[in-house]
Amino acid sequence: MRINRRSVLVEWGDCDPSGVIFNARYFAWFDASLHALLASGGLSFDGLVARHGIDGLPLVETSAKFFTPLRYGDSVVLETAVTKLHRCAFDLHHRVHKADRLAAECFETRVLTAPHPDEGRSRAHPLPQDLVACLTGPAAA
Amino acid sequence: MRINRRSVLVEWGDCDPSGVIFNARYFAWFDASLHALLASGGLSFDGLVARHGIDGLPLVETSAKFFTPLRYGDSVVLETAVTKLHRCAFDLHHRVHKADRLAAECFETRVLTAPHPDEGRSRAHPLPQDLVACLTGPAAA
Amino acid sequence: MRINRRSVLVEWGDCDPSGVIFNARYFAWFDASLHALLASGGLSFDGLVARHGIDGLPLVETSAKFFTPLRYGDSVVLETAVTKLHRCAFDLHHRVHKADRLAAECFETRVLTAPHPDEGRSRAHPLPQDLVACLTGPAAA
Amino acid sequence: MRINRRSVLVEWGDCDPSGVIFNARYFAWFDASLHALLASGGLSFDGLVARHGIDGLPLVETSAKFFTPLRYGDSVVLETAVTKLHRCAFDLHHRVHKADRLAAECFETRVLTAPHPDEGRSRAHPLPQDLVACLTGPAAA
Repeated sequence: MRINRRSVLVEWGDCDPSGVIFNARYFAWFDASLHALLASGGLSFDGLVARHGIDGLPLVETSAKFFTPLRYGDSVVLETAVTKLHRCAFDLHHRVHKADRLAAECFETRVLTAPHPDEGRSRAHPLPQDLVACLTGPAAA
Repeated sequence: MRINRRSVLVEWGDCDPSGVIFNARYFAWFDASLHALLASGGLSFDGLVARHGIDGLPLVETSAKFFTPLRYGDSVVLETAVTKLHRCAFDLHHRVHKADRLAAECFETRVLTAPHPDEGRSRAHPLPQDLVACLTGPAAA
Repeated sequence: MRINRRSVLVEWGDCDPSGVIFNARYFAWFDASLHALLASGGLSFDGLVARHGIDGLPLVETSAKFFTPLRYGDSVVLETAVTKLHRCAFDLHHRVHKADRLAAECFETRVLTAPHPDEGRSRAHPLPQDLVACLTGPAAA
Repeated sequence: MRINRRSVLVEWGDCDPSGVIFNARYFAWFDASLHALLASGGLSFDGLVARHGIDGLPLVETSAKFFTPLRYGDSVVLETAVTKLHRCAFDLHHRVHKADRLAAECFETRVLTAPHPDEGRSRAHPLPQDLVACLTGPAAA
């Protein structure tokens, strides 16, 4: 299954008055990490939209633990691994490493959605083959 | 010209480690204040999109001054006034009041855009009559 | 145990290109809901800092499910309930209601921290009596 | 005067339902660019706080123009130049380049502040020599 890593710097504006990262910022990071993982396998979400008529990859379930507070100026490595494929969804495991420490981790489920013509709203859509190939592809170096 | 006021509370997550509001938060407030001003005149951006085929109201120019830092727990009043209409754009003046003090103010120009079929991108679009009526309408109480 | 409710409007800038709320915004809402719950019981985080020398209320564990996507202009009610007190921590249950639907819910654990003189970093700190009284106080109307 | 450049990727969560970057994100970028410029000259804001007892570098005035909308997946170069030093403040010029186009630019003034013992609030503080040396130092390669 695909794994991707990227480095992120904790910015001043990511932190709150207690001097540590504001927790909502982690979830913006995790979302960007999913897009980076797709890119590491040659896919962009825009391309998926254009080819398959899908309209979203919403987060439907998440659970996270935070072990070490991050501070302004910390440089961390975000590691994102695909852990399971479902028919219309997939699971990810995000780990946030600060030097040799696990600072936080998160398990999440994303579902692929497409507009439903009769209902004026989106519904789950089976994972297309190019997305399956990307998610199951070899881990990045 | 239309004026609208709304109250906003400075949240913990709006502030940075120096204990005052992170400046980017003001611009999220100003954007929401534009939408609140439209709503005070009976319009929503979604409705404008549906009726006129437009696709955006991007900020093209802004200038702001910050006089008094805002802190966690401050309750402020945002006052937004339409100051000028152009053919495809309009100007706003935002004022942030903390009790009887002017804490910040901002002048901005918004342009209405619509997709252009030949170019695959958006272009300025004349303000439709319902939007003109809303922007020039009587100030809210 | 204390319960608090507050209304929130989904703003344009809260939403992403798929037209629904960007998931990180929920966590900013949940954080603000904790501060609103404290305020409903007469406490502010700043007051706790001044009286008890604490320095944070970090999120250490969270799990959330998202059932219905929220869109620009949706008005939702956030209900936050204290569900359990620990020696240095407490648990919250957040529910996001869109009309009569449960749109999302979140369970989280917050720990109270104070600077530790010998270590140059923060450690868990027992919940002071005023905070315990606030968290266990009667639910708001 | 010092100049610094850094690359930024426009993330999905940076964009709003019109498909282009939400304008508040630019100001978070500009703030991070100031910190990156200090770092390029060997300074961190934390170090300045520790050595000089200052407590902030708030934005007091800004003006920006946006020429080309940025979209999800765009990679841009942010160039930040110090343009003028004042006794307690300095001016910056940020330019956002998308390939060979100027997508946006911003002029801003930052003031250095320190706590004032008699007033319970912060006041402007003269730029210390290390900060002056950093800001006037040779442009980065």
